[in-house]
Amino acid sequence: MLLHLCTWSEVEDYLQQSQGIILPIGSTEQHGPTGLIGTDAICAEAIARGVGEATSAVVAPTINVGMALHHTAFPGTISLRPSTMILLIRDYVSCLAKAGFTKFFFINGHGGNIATLKAAFAETYSHLADLNIPNARLVQCQVGNWFMCGSVYTLAKELYGDKEGSHATPSEVAVTQYVYPEAIKSAPLSAEVATGHKIYGAADFRQRYPDGRMGSHPNLATPEHGKQFYDLAVKELSNSYLEFLAMT
Amino acid sequence: MLLHLCTWSEVEDYLQQSQGIILPIGSTEQHGPTGLIGTDAICAEAIARGVGEATSAVVAPTINVGMALHHTAFPGTISLRPSTMILLIRDYVSCLAKAGFTKFFFINGHGGNIATLKAAFAETYSHLADLNIPNARLVQCQVGNWFMCGSVYTLAKELYGDKEGSHATPSEVAVTQYVYPEAIKSAPLSAEVATGHKIYGAADFRQRYPDGRMGSHPNLATPEHGKQFYDLAVKELSNSYLEFLAMT
Amino acid sequence: MLLHLCTWSEVEDYLQQSQGIILPIGSTEQHGPTGLIGTDAICAEAIARGVGEATSAVVAPTINVGMALHHTAFPGTISLRPSTMILLIRDYVSCLAKAGFTKFFFINGHGGNIATLKAAFAETYSHLADLNIPNARLVQCQVGNWFMCGSVYTLAKELYGDKEGSHATPSEVAVTQYVYPEAIKSAPLSAEVATGHKIYGAADFRQRYPDGRMGSHPNLATPEHGKQFYDLAVKELSNSYLEFLAMT
Amino acid sequence: MLLHLCTWSEVEDYLQQSQGIILPIGSTEQHGPTGLIGTDAICAEAIARGVGEATSAVVAPTINVGMALHHTAFPGTISLRPSTMILLIRDYVSCLAKAGFTKFFFINGHGGNIATLKAAFAETYSHLADLNIPNARLVQCQVGNWFMCGSVYTLAKELYGDKEGSHATPSEVAVTQYVYPEAIKSAPLSAEVATGHKIYGAADFRQRYPDGRMGSHPNLATPEHGKQFYDLAVKELSNSYLEFLAMT
Amino acid sequence: MLLHLCTWSEVEDYLQQSQGIILPIGSTEQHGPTGLIGTDAICAEAIARGVGEATSAVVAPTINVGMALHHTAFPGTISLRPSTMILLIRDYVSCLAKAGFTKFFFINGHGGNIATLKAAFAETYSHLADLNIPNARLVQCQVGNWFMCGSVYTLAKELYGDKEGSHATPSEVAVTQYVYPEAIKSAPLSAEVATGHKIYGAADFRQRYPDGRMGSHPNLATPEHGKQFYDLAVKELSNSYLEFLAMT
Amino acid sequence: MLLHLCTWSEVEDYLQQSQGIILPIGSTEQHGPTGLIGTDAICAEAIARGVGEATSAVVAPTINVGMALHHTAFPGTISLRPSTMILLIRDYVSCLAKAGFTKFFFINGHGGNIATLKAAFAETYSHLADLNIPNARLVQCQVGNWFMCGSVYTLAKELYGDKEGSHATPSEVAVTQYVYPEAIKSAPLSAEVATGHKIYGAADFRQRYPDGRMGSHPNLATPEHGKQFYDLAVKELSNSYLEFLAMT
Repeated sequence: MLLHLCTWSEVEDYLQQSQGIILPIGSTEQHGPTGLIGTDAICAEAIARGVGEATSAVVAPTINVGMALHHTAFPGTISLRPSTMILLIRDYVSCLAKAGFTKFFFINGHGGNIATLKAAFAETYSHLADLNIPNARLVQCQVGNWFMCGSVYTLAKELYGDKEGSHATPSEVAVTQYVYPEAIKSAPLSAEVATGHKIYGAADFRQRYPDGRMGSHPNLATPEHGKQFYDLAVKELSNSYLEFLAMT
Repeated sequence: MLLHLCTWSEVEDYLQQSQGIILPIGSTEQHGPTGLIGTDAICAEAIARGVGEATSAVVAPTINVGMALHHTAFPGTISLRPSTMILLIRDYVSCLAKAGFTKFFFINGHGGNIATLKAAFAETYSHLADLNIPNARLVQCQVGNWFMCGSVYTLAKELYGDKEGSHATPSEVAVTQYVYPEAIKSAPLSAEVATGHKIYGAADFRQRYPDGRMGSHPNLATPEHGKQFYDLAVKELSNSYLEFLAMT
Repeated sequence: MLLHLCTWSEVEDYLQQSQGIILPIGSTEQHGPTGLIGTDAICAEAIARGVGEATSAVVAPTINVGMALHHTAFPGTISLRPSTMILLIRDYVSCLAKAGFTKFFFINGHGGNIATLKAAFAETYSHLADLNIPNARLVQCQVGNWFMCGSVYTLAKELYGDKEGSHATPSEVAVTQYVYPEAIKSAPLSAEVATGHKIYGAADFRQRYPDGRMGSHPNLATPEHGKQFYDLAVKELSNSYLEFLAMT
Repeated sequence: MLLHLCTWSEVEDYLQQSQGIILPIGSTEQHGPTGLIGTDAICAEAIARGVGEATSAVVAPTINVGMALHHTAFPGTISLRPSTMILLIRDYVSCLAKAGFTKFFFINGHGGNIATLKAAFAETYSHLADLNIPNARLVQCQVGNWFMCGSVYTLAKELYGDKEGSHATPSEVAVTQYVYPEAIKSAPLSAEVATGHKIYGAADFRQRYPDGRMGSHPNLATPEHGKQFYDLAVKELSNSYLEFLAMT
Repeated sequence: MLLHLCTWSEVEDYLQQSQGIILPIGSTEQHGPTGLIGTDAICAEAIARGVGEATSAVVAPTINVGMALHHTAFPGTISLRPSTMILLIRDYVSCLAKAGFTKFFFINGHGGNIATLKAAFAETYSHLADLNIPNARLVQCQVGNWFMCGSVYTLAKELYGDKEGSHATPSEVAVTQYVYPEAIKSAPLSAEVATGHKIYGAADFRQRYPDGRMGSHPNLATPEHGKQFYDLAVKELSNSYLEFLAMT
Repeated sequence: MLLHLCTWSEVEDYLQQSQGIILPIGSTEQHGPTGLIGTDAICAEAIARGVGEATSAVVAPTINVGMALHHTAFPGTISLRPSTMILLIRDYVSCLAKAGFTKFFFINGHGGNIATLKAAFAETYSHLADLNIPNARLVQCQVGNWFMCGSVYTLAKELYGDKEGSHATPSEVAVTQYVYPEAIKSAPLSAEVATGHKIYGAADFRQRYPDGRMGSHPNLATPEHGKQFYDLAVKELSNSYLEFLAMT
C-alpha cells in the first residue's frame, strides 16, 4: 500500500488497523564509475515496497536525498546538511504523528544517513513531547538498513568476499541492476581500488577515493544477485517491521 | 536522462554540454475522496521526465514532499514547514551549483509550493553570493507550474468548465489516471462542493473543505484526458525550459 | 487608530470591539534614479493609515524593511533574508494573537514581499496550532497589495500605459510625491529603459537593470496622481479589510 | 538625510564622503496607563533624526519592534525573540556593509534592546569575517541610548527625582508629548507604583507591575520637558556619533 | 553539592527542599601573556562551588566555553556564537525546569557573556511559556558576576588602582593562582598596555590589543590576593543567591 | 597540556609542533541509583587528560553536557538537542581551525553522543569548506569512545560478564570511583534489572528503565577496577590519537 497511491480516507481507514508506516530513505550520490547516482534511493524504495506488500503496511514516498556531504565533490551528488535533514525528519514525523501514526520504520539505503537519522529521532521525540499531542509518548522511530541485514551480509561475503568493499558495493549495484536492468552501466574499472581511508570533507574524500569506489568491485554484480539480495532484505526487514509493530 | 540512473562521470560529461537541470517538485497531501495523496508529485515527475526526454536534460529525483501545511488535518498528508523547505532547496541548489550547474528549472505540481520556492530562490542566490563560488552569479532558478500552462488551462476549461475547481481538480486527477491506471479510485462525491474560502490553518481548512476538494469535480477525469494534459504540459514546458537555457 | 499612539488599555478596550489589525509592510530598496529608497514603506504606511481611519482599525507600526535581496547591489537597500522575515512575521503575529487579535491584514507596498509573506503565514498558523493558544484556530492573515488593487491598476494604465513598468513605477512614485512633496527628486532618465528580464541574484539584477528601473518612466508621476492613487487604494483596501473582518 | 527619502545614487554619493549611518531602534510595548505603545520608537526616531541633521548623517528607517518579550502580557506589545532580532540586525548590517558602510550607530530608545543588540553585533562581526567582504574588518557597531546620556539623566533627576522610575518614565513620556502633542493621554494613576522587582517572564511581569509602570510617575511629564530632553539627547549623541566616526 | 557527583535520586530528594541551582559559566579565551586561557571558567567554577557549599545548593557542571568571539584571533580561544549560546542556555534551563528547578543562578566569570545570557533568559522564558510546563511561570534566571561584586571591586581598586584594567586583570589572574598555584605563568610584560579601545571584531581586537591585555598589569597578582578575592566573592554571591531564593 | 591552563602564546608555540587537539566530551545524565550524574564527563575528562599527558597533546575543556534527551525524565539530567550540539561542535571546531588546528580527536564518554557528533562533523566540514579558510581541507575530526576500546571491552566482560549491561555499567562506575573515591554511592539495587528495550522518548525510557540502569549491575564496580579501565583506555586511545596525527 503506497501512500502516494492512496486517498486520505483510505489512510484514515488504515489507521484504524495499524499505526505503522514505512519510510524509504536513500541518497543521491556518486557510486563509482558504474554505480547509479540513485543507488541508495533505488534500493531503499524497492525493498521498502517489498516489505510493504509483505506486511500490508503503508509505504511513504521515498526520501531521495539524504546526508551525503562527503560525496559532493563528485558531480551529480545532492546532499542535505545534517541540520536540514533533522528538520525534514521532524516535519515528516510530526505531520504523521498528529494524524495518528506512532510506529515509524525507516528503510535506509545509505550508511551516511544513520547518524543523522538517530539525531533526528531524538530531536523529534523531544519536539513532540513539547507539543502535548495525545500520542506523542507512543511515537517510536526505527531504522532498518537493508545492507546490514545478516542474510544480506552473509550472501555478499559469499559472493564477493573482500571485493564487496564499503561504497559502490557489488551488492547494492546488483540490486539496482535487478530493479533497472535497462540501466546497467559498464566502464573500465581499475583493479586497484582505494580502501581504508576515513571519511572527512568532500574535497579530501575525492582525493582519497578518486573514482568514488571504496574498496569495492561492482563489476561482480549481476541482476540475478540483485534479486537474491532483494528477496533476503525484504524477508528480513519484514520480520523486523512486524516485531517493531508488536513491541509495546 | 534521469539523474538517479546516471553515473557521476556521465554527469561530468553532461556538464560539458549543458548546465541545466530539471527538478520535479510535488507534494504529499490529500486530494479529496478520490484523488491520490501523491497526485502533485506524480504529475510533476511524469511531466518532468517527459520534458527531460524532449530536451535531453537531466532530471533530478522528485521532491515528493513540499509545503502542504494547510492539508495536514487530513491523514496521510506530509508537509515541510516553509523554513525547512527553504533550507532543503538551498542545499539542493548549492550542491549542484558547486558541481557546475547554473540553470535550475523546477517543474512544480503544487500551487502551495510556489511562494516558498520563490522565497527559497532569493535566499539561495544570496547564500551563493556569500560563498564566492566561481559561477554563483550565473545561478538562475525558475519554476514551471504544469497546471498553469496556457494550453493546460484552456483544455481544462473546455473539458470541465467551472467544475475544474482549484484543488483535487479533474485535470490533475486525469494525469494521475494516465500515469497509474491501476490506481483509479472511486468514491461517492457529493454534488455540492465547498468553494471560495481562503486558506488559513489546517484545522480551519478541513472545516471549510470537509472532503478535501476545493470546488472540483474529479469524477470527470479520464485517463485519456490525462494523456492530453500530459502532452500539452510536456510540450509547453519543454519550450519554457529551452528558452530558459537560451537566456543569458 | 495608530498602535504606536495608543496605550495598552486602549488596545484592551479595542479588542472588545474588534480582533482585527492592519500591518503596513514595505521595503527599503532602490527605486531608480528618482524614486525614494523608502517608496514601498511610505506608500504602504500612508495607505494603511488611510484604511485605518476609514475603518476604525488599529494600525501597527510599519515593517520598513522587507524582502529585497535582489536590489542589494544598489547602495542604500536593506533586506531581510526570507528565513529572517518568516521569523519576524511569526513573532509579530504570535505576540498579537496571544493578546487576542485574530485578523491580520497586511497592507503591502512591495511585490517582492508577497511570496515570503505567504510562506510566513503558513509557518505561523502551524506554529500557533502547536502552542494550543485558545484562539489559534481563528487566526487569519491576509495580504492587501495596494498596487494590485483593480482601481489602481486601471488608473495607472490610463495615465501611463506601458510606461508604468514594474519597478520604480510612476504610480508608486506619485504616491510618495503626494505624501512627501518636499522630497520630489529629479535626475536625468534615459528614454530607453531595461525591461522584461527575470529576477535572479543581486549582482545579476544590477547588470540587467543598470539604473534600477524596470520598464518604468517615473518622470510621469505627479503629486496629484499620487492623491488619486492614494484615494483609490484606501477605498478599495478598506472594503477588503471590512470583508475580511466579516468573514467567519 | 533620511535614507527612505534618498535615491540610491544619493546614497552612492554620500558613501564617498562618509561610511557612517544612524539606525534608530525602539520597541512596541506597553508604557503604562498613559504612555504610548510606540514610546521607545518615537523617541529613538525623533532623536536620531535630530542627530542626523546635526551631523549630516544618513538615518535608516526606524526599527520599530525590538526585544520586549517581558511586556507581552499587555495587549498591543509586539516583540521579536532575541534570536530573531540577532538575524535581523545581521541582515541589516550585512546589506549595508556590502554597499560600503562601516560605522553603524544605533540610537536606541529601549533598555531591553541593549543586551540583544550587543549579542547581535558580535554575531555580525563574526559573520562578516567569514564572508571575506573587503571592508568586513572595518565594520563597527555602537549603541547610543538616549535615555542614558549624562545630560538627560541629570535633567530627569532634577525634574522628577525618584519619580522618574525605570519604565514608562516621565522623561520618555515627555519626549513623546513633545513629538506628538496631539496624542497626550490622561488616565488615573495610582500614587503607589510597583518598583524594584526583577524582570523575568511576561506573565510574571504583569503580575508584579499590574499597570505596566516600573516605579515611574509619568503624569509629571510635559511637552516642554520633552523638548529639553530632546535637545540634550540630540546634542550629546551628535557628539558621540562624531567621535565614533573619527575613531579609526 | 556538585550535580555531577550526585545520583538522580539525590537530585529528586534535593528538589523537595529547594528548586534552586547554581550554574557556573566562564569562557575559554586568551588572557594576555600570563593569564590562563581558562581563567574565566576557573574563577566561575571555584567561586560557584564555594557558594554551593556555603548555601547547600546544587552546582551544575561548568559551562566552560562562552561568548568570546572578539578574542578568537588569539589561538586557543574557543567561542560560541551568541545564537548558539542562546540555544544552549535554553536547552539547559528547559531540561532542568521540566525536572522541577525554578531558580537558576548563573555565576559568571566573563563580561562578554552578560549580554548573551540576558538575551538567552528572555528567549527561554518565552519558550517555556509556550510549552505549558506546570511551573514555567515560576522560572527565574539571574546572573551573578563575581568580578562585579562590590567587595571584589573595592579590593581590586585598593590593591591595583588603575592597573586592574578590564581584561586579563590582576584580580582574576590572582584567583587562578590561588586555585592552580602550579600553573602560575611568567612572561615579559610591556609597561605600556593598550587601553580604552572599544570592542568590535576579532581581527580588529588583536590589532588594538596586541598582547591581549586591556589596560591591565596581571604581574601584580598573587595567590594570596586570589584567596581574598575568592572569599569576598563567595560571601557576597552566597548572599545574592539566598536572596534570590527567598524572593517570590 | 591542558588548554585552560595555557596562555595563548603557549598555544601559538604548540601549533608550531602539532595541529592536534583532544576534546573530552561527556554527558550530564542519570546513571542509575548509584551512578554519578557526571559519569560520562568524568570518565572522558580523566582519560583525555591521561592521553594528553601520554602524547604531549593539548586537551580542551570538557564538553560536560551532550545529547541525553532520552534521560531527561530523570531529574538532574541536562541535554542539548542534537541541533544545538551540532552548532556547538561547529563553533568549537571553527574557532580552533581558524587558529591552525586541523586534527580534532574527541574522547567521548557517552554512547548517545556518537550519532550527533558524526552529524556535526559532516556539517562542520561543509561549513569550513564554504569559508575558504586556508587549512579547511585539512580539518579532520575523529571520535575515540573509551568504553568501546577493545581492551576495555575485554576486561569488562572478564570482570562482569553479562552484568556489564549498557548504561550505568560497572565499568564506567568503576572509573568514576577511581577518579572520585570520595563520591562512591551506595543504594539498594534490585537484582532484576530492565534490559533490551530500544530507546525512544524520555517518558517512555523512564517507564521501561524505572531505576535508570540498562541491564547493568554497577555494584560490582570497585576503584581498583576503575584504575585498570583507566589505564587500558589511556593506552589504547593514546595509540589511536598518535595514529590519527600520523595519518595524512
